[in-house]
Formats: sequence, structure tokens, C-alpha cells
Amino acid sequence: MYAVTIADGALRWSEHPDPVPGAGEVLVKVMAAGINGADRFQLMGLYPAPPGSPADIPGLELAGEVAALGPGVERFGIGDRVMAIVGGGGQAELCVVHERHLLPIPESVDWAAAGGFAEAFTTAHDALFGQAELAVGERLCVHGAAGGVGIAAVQLGIAAGASVVATVRNEALRDQVAAFGPTVVAPDGFGEHGPFDVVLELIGGSNIGDDVRSLATGGRIAVIGTGAGAKAELNLLELMGKRGRIHGSTLRARNLEDKALAARGVEKHVLPLLAAGTVTVPVEATYPMAEAAQAYEHFAAGGKLGKIVLVA
Amino acid sequence: MYAVTIADGALRWSEHPDPVPGAGEVLVKVMAAGINGADRFQLMGLYPAPPGSPADIPGLELAGEVAALGPGVERFGIGDRVMAIVGGGGQAELCVVHERHLLPIPESVDWAAAGGFAEAFTTAHDALFGQAELAVGERLCVHGAAGGVGIAAVQLGIAAGASVVATVRNEALRDQVAAFGPTVVAPDGFGEHGPFDVVLELIGGSNIGDDVRSLATGGRIAVIGTGAGAKAELNLLELMGKRGRIHGSTLRARNLEDKALAARGVEKHVLPLLAAGTVTVPVEATYPMAEAAQAYEHFAAGGKLGKIVLVA
Repeated sequence: MYAVTIADGALRWSEHPDPVPGAGEVLVKVMAAGINGADRFQLMGLYPAPPGSPADIPGLELAGEVAALGPGVERFGIGDRVMAIVGGGGQAELCVVHERHLLPIPESVDWAAAGGFAEAFTTAHDALFGQAELAVGERLCVHGAAGGVGIAAVQLGIAAGASVVATVRNEALRDQVAAFGPTVVAPDGFGEHGPFDVVLELIGGSNIGDDVRSLATGGRIAVIGTGAGAKAELNLLELMGKRGRIHGSTLRARNLEDKALAARGVEKHVLPLLAAGTVTVPVEATYPMAEAAQAYEHFAAGGKLGKIVLVA
Repeated sequence: MYAVTIADGALRWSEHPDPVPGAGEVLVKVMAAGINGADRFQLMGLYPAPPGSPADIPGLELAGEVAALGPGVERFGIGDRVMAIVGGGGQAELCVVHERHLLPIPESVDWAAAGGFAEAFTTAHDALFGQAELAVGERLCVHGAAGGVGIAAVQLGIAAGASVVATVRNEALRDQVAAFGPTVVAPDGFGEHGPFDVVLELIGGSNIGDDVRSLATGGRIAVIGTGAGAKAELNLLELMGKRGRIHGSTLRARNLEDKALAARGVEKHVLPLLAAGTVTVPVEATYPMAEAAQAYEHFAAGGKLGKIVLVA
């Protein structure tokens, strides 16, 4: 097979041996694979692939057709349309995925949207509900709401009956984000729109202090990205006074069971919304996989709403 | 009545009007009242009393006899031995307490121990179980384990089936803490004894970075004190990699219902242990209330195991 390949800090389209599905695993013919921030960090050499994943093939999410079954696979058959999060290796013609990590693709969802669904919506669902325990009637702030995870979180928050404030730095994107229903504001001074029961933090760094100050009593901050840096200054007395809590999380390094649990959560709670069109995957652009370098440049340039997806 | 009184940054023993119990409230003749860190901060002008509490009488916990009942009191009668957390004003001859905040004192517990029980054990119980969700078989690190809250947390952790590591800076106190059953270590390098599922942080400040690094996957840090400073530097990628969370909390500023909930938790889960002698309140020294200034100096000097308690 051919795959997007990291070699000497650059992306190439190179040949690799076909992967072989083991027990409980499925071989997927990849039709679409979204690009995520972690792929860029991996390309820059800052974020090595987790154990058991290909070291040089990026890609944390994919959609495709089941092409072969390993021993003992029960949930899917050849030709089924599936999507999943993987530890890496998704940006390739073929990828092996454990069947417990696969999600069926609703009929109404096309390949590009399916290829950009899993990482963003699983991350957003896990952070908002698995960690921060967002509940109906609460007030949610989503930072970086124009990105793939951000716009997923905005939609899930609204679907769950929360009142959602979305921060978007790029003025040109604010109307597009507002079309999904949140109150869209600039990042500076977002705290005036609080207090927030839940803050989803995709930017990190210096934002944390303002996040804590913007919390309602008992509020929760879920940190799932550090685009603005990993170092945060925290005033513990402020956190104590709010009786707040700060969660940090990543999906990529979780073990098989934890990822399967996250997938079951998405299957039960998010797929019905996706099938009904209550939530959608906005795709900014698609690129052929062989042109991944250009796609990554587009991704890095920002100024986009939703996902950039590589397609077969 | 007379009460310990903060005037111009010093402690006096001064006369005040007798407080009058309102609906659902009880007048307690105070027999013993523990000293806590927040009392010292209040004396230094750094931590004003919460709304509804006397501005100039410190004291967050007390034990005594019910001396009068306000309208509608149902749970207690005149002469009952009771103990409680209060928002302030506990270091006085008389104090009004809502009956939902009162706990009955087990027969085997003397006044001094009862006077030093409520704040320490409620704080420790709420932090370990209400916030950090400590579970049987987990590994717990208690920082500042020689203090009132610390030694309460050590005992509760062991009683709940956790494996407990206790950090104690003062070498002279380590054997006394070890007698309660934990592995006692110096604060420097405590992380070598991890990874920890739960860290109880009573020191704050620069400890937080090491706390995060010492966590097991899915670990929780409960911050309930900032003796070493409120400013913490946090590496968000480390917190994300551990899928950790940081709780901040105080009891003092909670509303009536939240405090009543905390009291019910202690009544159900901790009083049976106290009555059975499974947990005890180590009292380092008692002072007559009129000599509060000396007692606070002793408290500030450190080098003590457990509580310093003012007695009638």
C-alpha cells in the first residue's frame, strides 16, 4: 500500500507493506482521513506515535470500507462503511483497526465528513461529558470554536441543552460559527460572558488563569489542547474559591479498552445526532492523500472552519 | 458573652452581645474550638469572614452543649453534645449553628478532640472522597501529613483501604505520623514513591508540578491548602498525558445546603470510625480561650502533630 509518510521532517507518499489484521481486528480500505493538530506535532518531531502504531505514518482518524477480517471479528463484515480513531497510521490506503474501535457510518454521511468525524467528536464528547460532566441548562464556553473539535463541542453542547459561548479569534469565521447557534465572541474579554459551568480549553497556556476566573462555583475546565503553549500559571486560591477543577486529557495514548469505551459512548450518544443531522462535520477542504503536504500547509495556515480531510 | 476577637491585627478576649438562634438554629455553649490555618489568615487580614458570619470572631469548628433552640429545631435537644463546622465565630463562649450542620459527639470522644474534629475531618473526607473519589486499593499521597487535616486524611485513606504515603517536613514528627500506619517520607523526592492515584495537596505553590508528574494515569490532585503560596506553574501537556485532574476547594464559603451535605457525609461515613476509635483526633495542646494569642503563636510555630484546641 501507499501511505502519507514522515521522512526527515517532510511528508511523502511512499510504499509500505500492507498491514495484516490480527485477532479482533479489521483491515479498512481508507476512503477519507482527517488531519489533526497532533499530526502536525508528530511531523515536527514533537509527539512520537504511541506504542503499537506505525512510527512514520500519521493519521488519527479515518473512514472507509471493511476490506478483510482478522480472526474472531463479529461486529462487522466485508464492505461495511466504518469510521474510527486510531493511534496513528490512518492516512494510508489501508489501515488495521480493532473492531471495538469502529463506528458504523450513518447512510446520510459522505466519506469526507465521516473521515473528519471520529477524532473531533470523540474528543469533544469525552471532554464535555466524560470529564467535565456538562449538564442540561449549564453554561459552556468553547475556546477555539472554529476548529474541528471546537465546532463539534459547540454542536454537542447545544444538543445537550447547554447555553454555549464560542470564542473565535478570526473575525472572518465568526458568522459561520454563529450559524451553528452559539453566542460567538472574541477571545479577549470572554469572561464577561460567564460565569461558565464548563470551559473547553483547546488553546492552553496563558488562557488558564482567565478560565479559572470565569468559572461559576463548581465549574470545570477540560484542557484538551495547548496550541498557545503548555505552561500555565494557576492561582490555587482562585481555583479553591470557585471549588473548580481542571481536567487534562488526550485520546491518542489510551489503551484499547479505554478507546473502545470512548467509541461506545460516541456510538450511543453522538451517532443518533449525526444520523439525524443535528450535528454535522463541516469540511473546509479535501485533498488527495498523495497531496498531504499541501493539505497540512492549509491546516497550519488556519483561517478555516472545521476539518481538512485527505481522500482516496 | 466573651469571645476571641480580632482587633487591629491582634487577638483579644472581649465582650460581645449573646447571639440568638433563628429558625432551625441552635445556640451552643462552646466547650472546645480548634484553630485552623484560615483563622491565622483572617487574623492577618488576608481572608475576610464569609457573609453572615461575625467579622471579628475567628473559629471554624467547635464542640459544646446545646444551650437553647431556635424555632423549628428537630434534631437536637438542650444539653446534647454536638460539634460542627461554622463559617466563623466558633472561638467564643456561645455560637449559633444551623442544626443541619451539627454532628452528635460519640460518647468516647472528649471535648478537646471533638473541638478539633469537624473542620479537619470534614475537609479531608470531602477532598478525598467527594472530590478525588479515592477508592479501595488505590495509592494516596498526603502532603503535610502532620497537620490536622493531613493526619485526618492519612487515617481516612488507610481506613478506606488505600495505600498511603505521607510527606512530613519536620523529621521530629515522622515517627509519630508513622504510628498511624502510612509510609512516611520527606517531601523532597516524594514522587519516587508513586505513582499516586490521589494526591492531597495542603502546601500548594511549587508542589503542583511535582504532584502532576507523580500521578498515575487517571490520577487526581485535591488542593485544599496553599501554605507555600497560591501561584502554581502547571505543564498542561503533562496533565493531559496523565489524564489527570486538579480540584480546588474550600469548605468555609459554601452555602448552608452544601455544608449540610458535607456534614451528612461525615455523619454517615466518618462518625462510625470515630466512635470505634478507628480514627482519632490527635491534640497537640489545649489553651483556655482567653489565652488564644498564645495558642495561635503555638499554631504558627509549627512542629506539632495534630490540633491545637481552645477550651472553655
